[in-house]
Amino acid sequence: MKYRIAVDMDEVVADSLSRYLLWYERDFEEKFPIDLLPGKKPFEVVPPERAEIVKKYPHQIGFFEDLPLIEDSQEILAELAQKHEVFFTSAAMEFKYSFLEKYHWIEAHFPFIHWKNRVFCGDKSIIRADYMIDDNGFNLDTFQGEGLLFTAPHNLHMQKYRRVNSWKEIKEIFEAL
Amino acid sequence: MKYRIAVDMDEVVADSLSRYLLWYERDFEEKFPIDLLPGKKPFEVVPPERAEIVKKYPHQIGFFEDLPLIEDSQEILAELAQKHEVFFTSAAMEFKYSFLEKYHWIEAHFPFIHWKNRVFCGDKSIIRADYMIDDNGFNLDTFQGEGLLFTAPHNLHMQKYRRVNSWKEIKEIFEAL
Repeated sequence: MKYRIAVDMDEVVADSLSRYLLWYERDFEEKFPIDLLPGKKPFEVVPPERAEIVKKYPHQIGFFEDLPLIEDSQEILAELAQKHEVFFTSAAMEFKYSFLEKYHWIEAHFPFIHWKNRVFCGDKSIIRADYMIDDNGFNLDTFQGEGLLFTAPHNLHMQKYRRVNSWKEIKEIFEAL
Repeated sequence: MKYRIAVDMDEVVADSLSRYLLWYERDFEEKFPIDLLPGKKPFEVVPPERAEIVKKYPHQIGFFEDLPLIEDSQEILAELAQKHEVFFTSAAMEFKYSFLEKYHWIEAHFPFIHWKNRVFCGDKSIIRADYMIDDNGFNLDTFQGEGLLFTAPHNLHMQKYRRVNSWKEIKEIFEAL
């Protein structure tokens, strides 16, 4: 059966966490405290006087440019898009400079996801699909289909949703349907 | 009852047709053949050798900037947003320079539509809502809620959907629910 799969971008196909680490090192000349990340967002694990600066990173020009790919996302989404309807559904609306950077990034790495299948939104309860792959539990909370929680440091303690740790696991799930 | 209403932007709240007319006059030093528009798209009513130029207008920087408002859209959406969940759902993904221009336009004219309630998409079958107000029949074709066709020159002959000719009519429909 052909399913519609809504796929988040940051921390699911695009490694935006790596940009936090890079910019933190650039600004504070020390390593980002990566060991403190489990269960937390980047701005929550830095010294309090730096939190506002780190929180603003994704609002700045360049943050979403040339992000590294999450392992296997490209190959496996190319396969899934052959059989299913794959949409990118990114909560880009919070970050106004992310639009064009995300658009170009998709063009570069996922040209097979047609512009008709790309969504920049805010509240994802507006999305109608059969599956949603996302690293944020609050996006799955309001989803009427089946949610798959893509593992990221900030969600490691979350028990509520079926967890996927890699794109290889996602491939197996859809092959078994 | 509180409903979720998905509202298109171009030709529904933003008068993008006026930008075609302006740019056409700028480029060809004559009036746009507005009398030929009923049932057609702008590029279909100009001399064939100009069609490609006109077709490219919305792909260019500045096309969606400072567009005039469709009459009463601001006041009536402000009222509707008090009682219902209003989302902007714009097929912006076709026009990559439209993102930031549309974002700023919403901030200027509809700041009460929160960024969480703004969607830039392509194929609107991804939208989950109770009502969709749109000037394109093909967006209503795949919608699972109730579609309202907002009158625009290109859709004057379409019979398939409940038609609304103005924001005053929309106000009446939602008041009568």
